Amino acid sequence: MVKSIGVLTSGGDAPGMNAAVRAVARTCLNKGIDVYGVMLGYKGLHEGQFYKFNRHSTRNIINIGGTILKSARFPEFKNPQIRLEAIEQMKAVGMEALVVIGGDGSYHGALELTKLGVNCIGIPGTIDNDIPLTDHTIGFDTALNTIVEALDRLRDTSGSHQRCTILEVMGRTCGDLAVNAGLACGAEIVITSETGFDEEKVIERLRQSKAGDKKHAIVVITEHVTDVNELAKRIEAATGFETRANVLGHLQRGGRPSANDRVLASRMGVRAVELLEQGKGGLAICEQGGVITEVPMLTLFDSKRDVPEELYEDVLKLR
Amino acid sequence: MVKSIGVLTSGGDAPGMNAAVRAVARTCLNKGIDVYGVMLGYKGLHEGQFYKFNRHSTRNIINIGGTILKSARFPEFKNPQIRLEAIEQMKAVGMEALVVIGGDGSYHGALELTKLGVNCIGIPGTIDNDIPLTDHTIGFDTALNTIVEALDRLRDTSGSHQRCTILEVMGRTCGDLAVNAGLACGAEIVITSETGFDEEKVIERLRQSKAGDKKHAIVVITEHVTDVNELAKRIEAATGFETRANVLGHLQRGGRPSANDRVLASRMGVRAVELLEQGKGGLAICEQGGVITEVPMLTLFDSKRDVPEELYEDVLKLR
Amino acid sequence: MVKSIGVLTSGGDAPGMNAAVRAVARTCLNKGIDVYGVMLGYKGLHEGQFYKFNRHSTRNIINIGGTILKSARFPEFKNPQIRLEAIEQMKAVGMEALVVIGGDGSYHGALELTKLGVNCIGIPGTIDNDIPLTDHTIGFDTALNTIVEALDRLRDTSGSHQRCTILEVMGRTCGDLAVNAGLACGAEIVITSETGFDEEKVIERLRQSKAGDKKHAIVVITEHVTDVNELAKRIEAATGFETRANVLGHLQRGGRPSANDRVLASRMGVRAVELLEQGKGGLAICEQGGVITEVPMLTLFDSKRDVPEELYEDVLKLR
Amino acid sequence: MVKSIGVLTSGGDAPGMNAAVRAVARTCLNKGIDVYGVMLGYKGLHEGQFYKFNRHSTRNIINIGGTILKSARFPEFKNPQIRLEAIEQMKAVGMEALVVIGGDGSYHGALELTKLGVNCIGIPGTIDNDIPLTDHTIGFDTALNTIVEALDRLRDTSGSHQRCTILEVMGRTCGDLAVNAGLACGAEIVITSETGFDEEKVIERLRQSKAGDKKHAIVVITEHVTDVNELAKRIEAATGFETRANVLGHLQRGGRPSANDRVLASRMGVRAVELLEQGKGGLAICEQGGVITEVPMLTLFDSKRDVPEELYEDVLKLR
Repeated sequence: MVKSIGVLTSGGDAPGMNAAVRAVARTCLNKGIDVYGVMLGYKGLHEGQFYKFNRHSTRNIINIGGTILKSARFPEFKNPQIRLEAIEQMKAVGMEALVVIGGDGSYHGALELTKLGVNCIGIPGTIDNDIPLTDHTIGFDTALNTIVEALDRLRDTSGSHQRCTILEVMGRTCGDLAVNAGLACGAEIVITSETGFDEEKVIERLRQSKAGDKKHAIVVITEHVTDVNELAKRIEAATGFETRANVLGHLQRGGRPSANDRVLASRMGVRAVELLEQGKGGLAICEQGGVITEVPMLTLFDSKRDVPEELYEDVLKLR
Repeated sequence: MVKSIGVLTSGGDAPGMNAAVRAVARTCLNKGIDVYGVMLGYKGLHEGQFYKFNRHSTRNIINIGGTILKSARFPEFKNPQIRLEAIEQMKAVGMEALVVIGGDGSYHGALELTKLGVNCIGIPGTIDNDIPLTDHTIGFDTALNTIVEALDRLRDTSGSHQRCTILEVMGRTCGDLAVNAGLACGAEIVITSETGFDEEKVIERLRQSKAGDKKHAIVVITEHVTDVNELAKRIEAATGFETRANVLGHLQRGGRPSANDRVLASRMGVRAVELLEQGKGGLAICEQGGVITEVPMLTLFDSKRDVPEELYEDVLKLR
Repeated sequence: MVKSIGVLTSGGDAPGMNAAVRAVARTCLNKGIDVYGVMLGYKGLHEGQFYKFNRHSTRNIINIGGTILKSARFPEFKNPQIRLEAIEQMKAVGMEALVVIGGDGSYHGALELTKLGVNCIGIPGTIDNDIPLTDHTIGFDTALNTIVEALDRLRDTSGSHQRCTILEVMGRTCGDLAVNAGLACGAEIVITSETGFDEEKVIERLRQSKAGDKKHAIVVITEHVTDVNELAKRIEAATGFETRANVLGHLQRGGRPSANDRVLASRMGVRAVELLEQGKGGLAICEQGGVITEVPMLTLFDSKRDVPEELYEDVLKLR
Repeated sequence: MVKSIGVLTSGGDAPGMNAAVRAVARTCLNKGIDVYGVMLGYKGLHEGQFYKFNRHSTRNIINIGGTILKSARFPEFKNPQIRLEAIEQMKAVGMEALVVIGGDGSYHGALELTKLGVNCIGIPGTIDNDIPLTDHTIGFDTALNTIVEALDRLRDTSGSHQRCTILEVMGRTCGDLAVNAGLACGAEIVITSETGFDEEKVIERLRQSKAGDKKHAIVVITEHVTDVNELAKRIEAATGFETRANVLGHLQRGGRPSANDRVLASRMGVRAVELLEQGKGGLAICEQGGVITEVPMLTLFDSKRDVPEELYEDVLKLR
């Protein structure tokens, strides 16, 4: 049976990562398994930046944003030699298995390590909700609520000044943050990489709104679709709506994790340790229909995320 | 096809009810169906307190707690004669169908009206999450986050003073609020009607904690299980832990609805109108594994809520 | 004695304006004075967009951001003829005096109306805290807390990724939001129009920080000082700190008003009506050392805001 | 010149205490003064529970509630012998002076130590705002906003169900939390030790409200005035208003400190060190009209808090 486990966070940080780290650590300690925090993701794994956890190590972190283990870019980990060196570092302290908390990009390294005999389990930690086969990733719910709070604030001033307000949110190529936030805030229009972007239609819709009884309007748009400041100018010119663009930016990645994210992270952390205890590796933890389960990382790499078509339709029905 | 629909809220209010009211109203208006807000639940239905909605009526309510339609107790609605009188009131304005937002107690009246030829659809609105066959009720996520925020505050002061803190939360006979909050806040002990309450065990556990390295402890308990102020005194006497009890009370019912509750409420509101449009009635909207669906109210009355055993186990694994 | 008073909001909206409107309305109604809400600032005054308030009119607005009276740009009000026309509109409904809630720009119109025999009292409503002779303007405390919350979120992710984070905040030419937020969040550097901006010094300081033991840094900067995205690039190039710029934008203007802003707004609203009742006009309400008082608008126009030198020094002492 | 300073927190914890601890520590380190955190208040002082701070010690605590130094009851410190023993502990590590963060009760020990040659400076840390000669104590603003948020939630459900809601808040014998919260939330009635409690008048006022157009009412009351659950029953019986009592409890003591509390705490911490550097002791830091200053502790002990009469009057004017 596994006697020593490491845990690291990789990629962009997400609220709830600390709750997952805590759950991994507590579950290990309660089972009598040694557990190490690996600093700075794969970079720290390669450098042997390991801290042995005791019960105090993860005290008072369940409700803190960010990751106490830090994160860092480390493209060098694609190099097989570097991975072997990392395994040497792990062996030096007796670390036999690893929990990797991060986006699906982080899973590739985890799968390679598993092939080399070090069982790894992935936990989906990213605000973008862009990992296939899991309904939710850790951090998504918190970021969504952060966006909704920002939109509530923008709605106040947008209404007072009868403006059109554009908010650009994160999500990389995944529109889940935008469409859920749009639905939650009564947005007029939601634009994501899934919907595509037809500027003419957007302008036409806002023109109609203004001609009707709408005094202000909110547009939510995923990052990387278009330049929102330029879009604002063109909308104002075309519709007469005074228009303001806002890019919400990195604050979406921080903050106290929501209840859901903490529960999700805690449950996934427990599950990850139990799988390693069973001698399994190369698996990614998922939440499907409220159930915590796991899929082979290889299956996940071959899968695409389902687009929540219904949500996009509901935005249209409710505007 | 249905030409006129009413919507009411019944039972205890819950954050997100207004988002559901808005979704019913908007969906109707966008489909060309007349829609009335019925004030004060079944009481207002009986008294004909109807307000015809236009697009302005539900403006700026999606993010407001409580219910703009108000709620009231009206046990008289169990009387068949009263129900017939209510139907007369509906007929007087041409209202042909009804959306009832509330707890499953509210569904009984809705089913009786359906039997009398007035199609009714139920939407689960209660913070208690105690309705069978739906994973979540509208308001649960908001109330859970409110509790978690209160526990985060209590944890600050509990840690500073090295106390044992007991928090009594709502949920009637359902422990979902308590167990999720306990998991999200790293509670030492969660006590609900599902777990039962063995005071000896609770005290023994806290005695062990104090003897170990724990400097403070949090106990979350569902309402109606025991008198928490008395429990606090007995814990303090038995364990030496300075202990404080808190009853969170009615503030759990209010506040800006969370993103999840607004999305859930919006989607359920759309679905309810679509079912009435199809000529259906006597159905309760549910969310099952992330999917919005519906079940016959009769099926729901014969069902029991699943207890989330895994959550209770995870609390134990993580303390 | 005055028998009828109007109230309007002008300039950028600010959280707490509604609490001030409510206080004006309630105080009038409790004194038996008629009170009208004037929509859209001076534009609505000129167009006669008046709504007579009753006790219901200002219900449930004390905790809502924005302004229920809306705001609009109306440079035409500088035209004496337009002002005379506005006075005609007021006379038509018997409105004898006016409370103007807004920035000091709004006070000019108020003073002109006073000269024409219509007593006006100004209430300082702006998040920028840039009005002389008042310690605080309505909205400042809420906006400050909004910024602090954003900085707390940014700090999480800034720390996890060991970045330098730049946040641009509002304030026009007043650095109060920036310096208070910087102090409240432990910023490394605060840049405002009062401090001036010496890019070389900023870069040198960050270079030293990185060379020392600082793993991440926060820079808070007032709007209109420099292009923060360009600054971020230059800092990253010069110091090696991965640097991200964020422009917080219009969300600073919205949101539930803080306790302080509601209390301040309520007290100022009461005071404004009492002054009008005493037959006074051309005065601006101020808060000085916790006391609600008033100064002649003319005095205010000749005054400059005190710069809180001590705060700027404390930032340096605490970094 | 002083070479080594200790800092402790005493009495009930308050949000912002950590910001004050950080400010004391940073100011010392930046001046080249050694600085020790003293755990558990005077108890830890007596036991020599000292931790030497470096720049890392107070990292990431500015926005955390509670006190990292913990607090504990220690009535034994009134014993002169115990105080001499504490001074021995201080001498053993070279600690020459002390900053005491807490309520005015904590100042007595600090004054005694000063008489014995150990300069002590007091910083007012308590949510109750019950210390004379300072406009605000650290923690008051945060607790006030916590109460206001609770009242906003209660207002939602109170309005939906047309209830009378009573909220008991902290403050010991000081009504500042209650009266400010009442003003900020449009309470019908505020009851504090300053106002006295005339149950007949309270009931009469609520009877009038209900007879008038008020559908719900909020009563805010300071702790220790009366049993609010019993009061609720009597109000309901006498007025017909369905009435619910809530005791907000210890959660008022926790939570992320507000911007104001962090700024106040930071400035006071700087000031305390500067006074010790000047060889002063037996002084209490105050905020008067926005200015950070200090008064002799003896003067403070002979003073009474001003009651903010205007606020109480404004509550009446605005209901």
